[in-house]
Amino acid sequence: MNVDIGNALGTTPGLTKGTLERLDGRVADAHERITSGMVNDEFGYASLSLPETADPDAIRAAVEPFDEPSAVLTVGIGGSALGAAALANALESDVDAYVLDNVDPDHVNGLLADLPLDDVVLNVVSRSGTTAETLANFLVVREAMADAGVDWTDRTLVTTGESGNLRQLAEDHGLPALDVPEGVPGRFSVLSTVGLAVAALQGHDIEAVLAGGRDGMDALSGSLFESPAYAYGATSYALAERGARTNAMMPYAESLETFAEWFTQLWAESLGKDGLGQTPARALGATDQHSQLQLYRAGPPDKLVTLVRPTKRASTPIPETDLEGLAYLGGSSLGDLLDAEFEATEASLAAANVPNVRVELNRVDERGLGELLYGMEAACVLYGELASVTTFTQPAVEWGKKAARGLLGGGEFPEADAVEDKREFRIE
Amino acid sequence: MNVDIGNALGTTPGLTKGTLERLDGRVADAHERITSGMVNDEFGYASLSLPETADPDAIRAAVEPFDEPSAVLTVGIGGSALGAAALANALESDVDAYVLDNVDPDHVNGLLADLPLDDVVLNVVSRSGTTAETLANFLVVREAMADAGVDWTDRTLVTTGESGNLRQLAEDHGLPALDVPEGVPGRFSVLSTVGLAVAALQGHDIEAVLAGGRDGMDALSGSLFESPAYAYGATSYALAERGARTNAMMPYAESLETFAEWFTQLWAESLGKDGLGQTPARALGATDQHSQLQLYRAGPPDKLVTLVRPTKRASTPIPETDLEGLAYLGGSSLGDLLDAEFEATEASLAAANVPNVRVELNRVDERGLGELLYGMEAACVLYGELASVTTFTQPAVEWGKKAARGLLGGGEFPEADAVEDKREFRIE
Repeated sequence: MNVDIGNALGTTPGLTKGTLERLDGRVADAHERITSGMVNDEFGYASLSLPETADPDAIRAAVEPFDEPSAVLTVGIGGSALGAAALANALESDVDAYVLDNVDPDHVNGLLADLPLDDVVLNVVSRSGTTAETLANFLVVREAMADAGVDWTDRTLVTTGESGNLRQLAEDHGLPALDVPEGVPGRFSVLSTVGLAVAALQGHDIEAVLAGGRDGMDALSGSLFESPAYAYGATSYALAERGARTNAMMPYAESLETFAEWFTQLWAESLGKDGLGQTPARALGATDQHSQLQLYRAGPPDKLVTLVRPTKRASTPIPETDLEGLAYLGGSSLGDLLDAEFEATEASLAAANVPNVRVELNRVDERGLGELLYGMEAACVLYGELASVTTFTQPAVEWGKKAARGLLGGGEFPEADAVEDKREFRIE
Repeated sequence: MNVDIGNALGTTPGLTKGTLERLDGRVADAHERITSGMVNDEFGYASLSLPETADPDAIRAAVEPFDEPSAVLTVGIGGSALGAAALANALESDVDAYVLDNVDPDHVNGLLADLPLDDVVLNVVSRSGTTAETLANFLVVREAMADAGVDWTDRTLVTTGESGNLRQLAEDHGLPALDVPEGVPGRFSVLSTVGLAVAALQGHDIEAVLAGGRDGMDALSGSLFESPAYAYGATSYALAERGARTNAMMPYAESLETFAEWFTQLWAESLGKDGLGQTPARALGATDQHSQLQLYRAGPPDKLVTLVRPTKRASTPIPETDLEGLAYLGGSSLGDLLDAEFEATEASLAAANVPNVRVELNRVDERGLGELLYGMEAACVLYGELASVTTFTQPAVEWGKKAARGLLGGGEFPEADAVEDKREFRIE
């Protein structure tokens, strides 16, 4: 992974090289804090050690009983699903990967009707074993399997904490079970059992994903000028402080669309605290040039646009044509066109003084993805240190969980009463 | 469609009922301007007349030659694709709908390898007939069909302007052809040939979509207190003026995920001008409660959250269970759980003083969607009037188009030279 911040200098909002030089001392301190957290296996910081602490053999062993399934259905939500989905949607496989990360009955019914339930691996992921959405979906899928005459105990893999419902189920029924690593929040768990089990089931090289993570780990250093991940984190932080409230994550590769979604969770849930945080917006190049670029160039000067691309792509020539005004396309490839659009968008943002950063990976493959995902996690952790927020917690989501539980009769919660008191002002 | 703005009053940023009362005179003036634009078929405003001016019979006739295809492949970009995709992804059909709205060679190759090219309808959409991405993809798909021994002229439908490449091709080869309506920018074209041809090919009731649009049209009036669409547009505008720079569009229905993407284009490209505009962010309930909600509740107070849901869903009971701590879920349905999460999130935002608006449609079906899409378009047009921006143009995207064309050897453009002058500052 390399990062080019040239187009984030001298823009609105913007930085100078001097800004970054002044910031670099704090980056060194933050790096020391991060390294110490990693060494001491502290909560959250332990995530950045996963390329070394994750055990690919254990993952291979857990998925080994499921010999060449036709599909994997992951039941999880948030960090328990997004990392696996980001890898699955980036890498080609003959094993289809589906995710149930929502409790929409129309969607669940549609998906269950389409799935080959006797040849799917049901991959249930919840650290606590009590996540309402995940367990509700698990119960529904398990019943659908029973209705279809499929023995769910033959088809189920769980990834969970040391104790709880799922652990108990695994013990009672002899299910293959993986451990959610200690000290790793869901949104930082892609390089662990949580993200890698699906990749292994799909036949991907999970050792290469971890090797990519190690590439990212090795590239961390006490100076943002020597570490691409820190350069990205520090630049984002400094721009946010100067008014870039939105970070539009815009990969130029369809395969990275779910990566952008994963990034959205990472950035929002880690940094959105104490009235601070940079709002991540998802975009996709070149598609969204025809959608959001107008706003990025001509709307409020409160954006950072992050442009991500692989430097190697498949080669697909555009056929020669005599269509009027299109002769120039013939002889180029789709990749040439996409790269021209990438560079044109980058320059068009620069011409409008909109800060943008270029992030390049070699190729969208196991190793490239491992490095990219690790790099964004390290960037996020650095940003959190610089902003002095508690990167690894998510206290603001608890209120709603209690309210929902109360509404469903799962206990007495004052939050549920607040729901009843909603201020109405309806226009029909 | 109905809109409840109760939770947008008294928040941070926020409004009072008095604010809206003072604004209502300007809404009346804007409505007069909008109505006059509709009556006189003015550029852009003509979009809001589509429920009456679109001709479903012409669409049915154009798709009639393609008798029960197994799939439809739309080749278009931005507004030429997103409306059709929003409908296709919201409504169940046995005819699969695919969209090529990007020039990523890896993605294009993967898709072409999977598609039954002899039984797919190739639906090419470009007003000018020269959109680089669309025409490049068309050339590639056409060649793939030829390589597979499929006569592309039997399988192709074009939707285009009065003249240009695609019109000429249709005339030369006797292809079914539909007209892109005059005076309707792409992002406002979902209720025209552009959005409805795919729906017709998928067997959906396009008359019902238009009837839903007419429901929305009939509900427009000179007061925001009497018109749900205007209530939404005026509330969004007033909140944006007071600091709600981001509008998080968060439907609680998987089927509306692409609708949120469509909304993103509508809002960004129409309103992002003159340094103004509200940045749309896409989210999905309940999934993103485990992702972005932390930021919405505890991050910078610069958000409006728009919560959309259908009031009717499929019924999928959650099986009874003796799993520890989950007995409360038994007897409820997935829909109950999703609705409890919706109301809990809404209340949790209100408890954190974050403005939020509830938008409800009856059901995610043809008529409900027609009304929702129309309502959001009318809301956007009203917002544009109140903000005094040119809602129907997108001047800021032209720079990049010229640069990309220049880079590919399609002519001399100073913009392409600017690309060469990129400021580099790489960290590797």
